[in-house]
Amino acid sequence: MIEQIRVTLESRPTGPPTFENFGIEKSPLGEIQDGQVLLKTIYLSLDPYMRGRMNADKSYAAPVPLGGIMEGECVAEIINTKNSNYSVGEIVAGRIGWVTHAISDGVDLRKIDKNIAPISTALGVLGMPGHTAWTGLNIIGKAKPEETVVISAATGAVGSLAGQLAKAKGMRVIGVAGGAEKCAFAKSNLGYDECFDHKLASDSSELRKWLLDATPNGVDVYFENVGGKTTEAVLPIMNDFGRISVCGMISWYSGVGVDEAMRLPGAWRAILTKRLQVRGFIVWDHNDVFDEFLSETAPLVQSNKIIYRETITEGIENAPEAFINLLNGKNFGKQLIKVS
Amino acid sequence: MIEQIRVTLESRPTGPPTFENFGIEKSPLGEIQDGQVLLKTIYLSLDPYMRGRMNADKSYAAPVPLGGIMEGECVAEIINTKNSNYSVGEIVAGRIGWVTHAISDGVDLRKIDKNIAPISTALGVLGMPGHTAWTGLNIIGKAKPEETVVISAATGAVGSLAGQLAKAKGMRVIGVAGGAEKCAFAKSNLGYDECFDHKLASDSSELRKWLLDATPNGVDVYFENVGGKTTEAVLPIMNDFGRISVCGMISWYSGVGVDEAMRLPGAWRAILTKRLQVRGFIVWDHNDVFDEFLSETAPLVQSNKIIYRETITEGIENAPEAFINLLNGKNFGKQLIKVS
Repeated sequence: MIEQIRVTLESRPTGPPTFENFGIEKSPLGEIQDGQVLLKTIYLSLDPYMRGRMNADKSYAAPVPLGGIMEGECVAEIINTKNSNYSVGEIVAGRIGWVTHAISDGVDLRKIDKNIAPISTALGVLGMPGHTAWTGLNIIGKAKPEETVVISAATGAVGSLAGQLAKAKGMRVIGVAGGAEKCAFAKSNLGYDECFDHKLASDSSELRKWLLDATPNGVDVYFENVGGKTTEAVLPIMNDFGRISVCGMISWYSGVGVDEAMRLPGAWRAILTKRLQVRGFIVWDHNDVFDEFLSETAPLVQSNKIIYRETITEGIENAPEAFINLLNGKNFGKQLIKVS
Repeated sequence: MIEQIRVTLESRPTGPPTFENFGIEKSPLGEIQDGQVLLKTIYLSLDPYMRGRMNADKSYAAPVPLGGIMEGECVAEIINTKNSNYSVGEIVAGRIGWVTHAISDGVDLRKIDKNIAPISTALGVLGMPGHTAWTGLNIIGKAKPEETVVISAATGAVGSLAGQLAKAKGMRVIGVAGGAEKCAFAKSNLGYDECFDHKLASDSSELRKWLLDATPNGVDVYFENVGGKTTEAVLPIMNDFGRISVCGMISWYSGVGVDEAMRLPGAWRAILTKRLQVRGFIVWDHNDVFDEFLSETAPLVQSNKIIYRETITEGIENAPEAFINLLNGKNFGKQLIKVS
């Protein structure tokens, strides 16, 4: 009988998560029943949104219960099947959590074509993060050629694709990232016109000055992944009728820096006087455009016109540490766990 | 020769405006030239947006220069004309400022039909504030029947019409206003389902609790006129996919209370997790819907299905005091100056 190793939520963090918040458990999985498949995880995706699931309060989805399996999407292989839609050896993506194996009824699995690109991309540039980048830029941000976009977490799983898609659209693309290496990569490899290291800015005013100098036509779209200093820097320099796609706010997820953050009146004033549109979005509300995203992006990835970068950590037991590092910005590009 | 009396901006306020910020001047107007008309002001409209014009920094329009005439819209009578489009005795609305008389080339004047409603309504329910209410509710707020809307400054020039239009649409309509008299008027005369006095709430949490109890189906649209405690109260109880029409933020215009205000992370979190759309708007960007607004609203005013309330102060020399009171919420309904 197959043993499942799983990472569970042992306690809820107050502030940044620590190892103590996670547990690792092992137990046999039962036999599959008619209609079910047995999955062996190959890659587990780690994403910032998971921090929200560790809290007790509902955000846009229910929290992970204490003792429950940490939520997440995996690429997995079908290793046994009693479901006529799936054959052994097929590769699928599914939200089975931080586990080595799982039993599924097959309903929410998505088959992955191994011939398009490496299967890990189904969790990154051709999966949820890519879908997020495409939606935030096009549907929420209503980005247009010739316009200027600022993208925070510019080299992250979402930002790196948003930047390349924006460049392919003919926009001026300015990134903000943490560290010289990421900024250099953004400019040399991802095609950003400019990228600023927020760690070098003493405060939001200094970062704003750099951004101002780099955006002679102002900022039309801000792709928000971070919050904090970058948000404070960008809001006052938005153009009239600018759009802000609120995709994430990683710098505030664990409560750090919240006290020092910009007060609401300043944001409200910018929104009113510049007639900004600020719109939060969750990619799962936009499944209707997934096929459009994929059909536009997959050929660009196949032809290497869009590149992607991954940080791959071996072993499910190392997922908590990798996740803690992800929240601290220590990863580079899409963070994956190679499970088997 | 006609003498013009005018109210000028003598100095820029830091914080709430005082009498010292205003000057009153008097001097003869020249003779009208070909193409021009001579206007005698009947009513001057006082509106919260004028506070922004007193600052040195540009918001959505240029500031009033020091020594310049305070900006504003008037209803005026044509008392002399060398423009074939206008006859003596006609009534027009125009942005001629805080003046008793003015010379105009007629380009930006709008003729007022005295038979529809009292001419003062061209500055209120059938003018810019009405247009603002209609646009904020329908275009920006995308309000739909059966939904719930919260309106701050519920009995103000904008809010009182927004509330009645929302009720006519079949919405649940909750107001927030300052004082028992305003709240009673909102419920008894304007048709609000409920109205809360923010002055009785010790803090935003208490106001939020009242709003929660009054909105069993949550809040779909927030019509923002005020900022401050009400914004803090409403943001966390918005429904998913709710819309916030940012029309004004009078409680923050003079800087009072800004220090105590909600921090940005909380607002950003609500926007992200609830997928809110927050959109600032200035009514002058929406002139394309003015005729639609007027054709829908004028018959309702004519038939008394929509009522309006005015605070009329006599004499242009009293405009500064009336404006200071307006910013303190001492007016009730649309604030006008009867100039002649």
